[in-house]
Amino acid sequence: MKILLTNDDGIYADGLCGLYFTLSEEHEVYIVAPEVERSAVGHAITIHYPLRVREVRRGKYFWGYAVSGTPADCVKLAIYELIGPVDLVISGINRGANVGINVLYSGTVSAATEAKILGYNGIAVSIDAYENIDYCFTAYFLGKLVKKLNNLSLLRPFCLNVNIPHLNPHQIKGVKFVRQSTAKLREFFEKRLDLHGKIYYWQGAEEHTETDEETDVVALKQGFITITPIQYDLTSYSGLTSLNSQKISIDI
Amino acid sequence: MKILLTNDDGIYADGLCGLYFTLSEEHEVYIVAPEVERSAVGHAITIHYPLRVREVRRGKYFWGYAVSGTPADCVKLAIYELIGPVDLVISGINRGANVGINVLYSGTVSAATEAKILGYNGIAVSIDAYENIDYCFTAYFLGKLVKKLNNLSLLRPFCLNVNIPHLNPHQIKGVKFVRQSTAKLREFFEKRLDLHGKIYYWQGAEEHTETDEETDVVALKQGFITITPIQYDLTSYSGLTSLNSQKISIDI
Repeated sequence: MKILLTNDDGIYADGLCGLYFTLSEEHEVYIVAPEVERSAVGHAITIHYPLRVREVRRGKYFWGYAVSGTPADCVKLAIYELIGPVDLVISGINRGANVGINVLYSGTVSAATEAKILGYNGIAVSIDAYENIDYCFTAYFLGKLVKKLNNLSLLRPFCLNVNIPHLNPHQIKGVKFVRQSTAKLREFFEKRLDLHGKIYYWQGAEEHTETDEETDVVALKQGFITITPIQYDLTSYSGLTSLNSQKISIDI
Repeated sequence: MKILLTNDDGIYADGLCGLYFTLSEEHEVYIVAPEVERSAVGHAITIHYPLRVREVRRGKYFWGYAVSGTPADCVKLAIYELIGPVDLVISGINRGANVGINVLYSGTVSAATEAKILGYNGIAVSIDAYENIDYCFTAYFLGKLVKKLNNLSLLRPFCLNVNIPHLNPHQIKGVKFVRQSTAKLREFFEKRLDLHGKIYYWQGAEEHTETDEETDVVALKQGFITITPIQYDLTSYSGLTSLNSQKISIDI
């Protein structure tokens, strides 16, 4: 398969590296990734600045293209200009889970969603840890998942959001297909003073408030690998039905 | 009503101003908006940098808070720290329509979505023009819409994405409740050389390819004001059903 790798942690991130070495054993793998970390950029694209592309080498080997934009920019530019059509776009391995409401803020997931928008299959993969991360098992699992994709009867193009618990592989309970949790995050701002006595804020979030076991948030916490198929129609159909049933006229 | 205004064109934008003067005649209106233009930021939030807040005055009057972040940051910071709970968050008036796939890239819509996530009602409003824009009618229409909201039986919190055609009011055909189009954009990258002979790219998009009249893209083009209720569950339920029916086991 011809696979495009990208991420939101930047082209030098370990997670991307782990994925590359595992997948390139059996596939034709290309890297187009942000030149710097672009976490929590959501589905941002760069339209008010030009995009720059730089060829990155590791030792004497060509490694990939570093782009001065977001993960979604990388996918578009890769497919339209740098690489051409691919069989699959994989975004990750992200440091930190992308489950629940956080999916909306995620640059990692937005790259896989962008693939689907453009008509290509996409997978976003994240690991539920920020420190002392072992990417080996995740890369190995992705390799196996990619092999199984051809046997899956899924509407194509598909987009899958995969999250891996940070456990020893034998402690992982299995794979669970679940919905994205929409439960609120417990968020806060921490107000601090800089060296000149001026206020600034750090934005943070604590635990999800979700309790439903059939969601990505809870299943991941319980030790399952979670897979959520992603779509990009933000219409609230229940809201639409309700509005249309009310025959509202607004005088102009 | 207590109304929070924000946008993605920045705190000095004319569209925000027009909305403020119309709504403040009858409501308690607060402004918390990005200090600079933050278009196409998607649902980005700022977690790797601290946020700064600056009080902005117009003449001798307090105008609002300028935030060094995205529209979604503004809504969170306003509700958690600067303003407190509100009855309604309005994001706009944006220069340029936010319909179809562009809804995913829109900072304007993400602010209204963020309101809903936090448990507050939100409206995003955009006008289908980039030049010689008359914001008066749009502000007037929003004022009327806000008054009618109490009569609407809508699940709360609601989030409405409103788009206004750039026509003389008497040419507008009415108000239509429609779904978000998911049809592809015709996109392109324009490759140019800088003064040093180095390549850079501009990202652009042409027309939507949508043809269904029951979508935001087509209804707006036909001269209707479009209203699309927005939700933020990205799960593909058809994909989920399909995956679950296949009892896939992936050996770990």
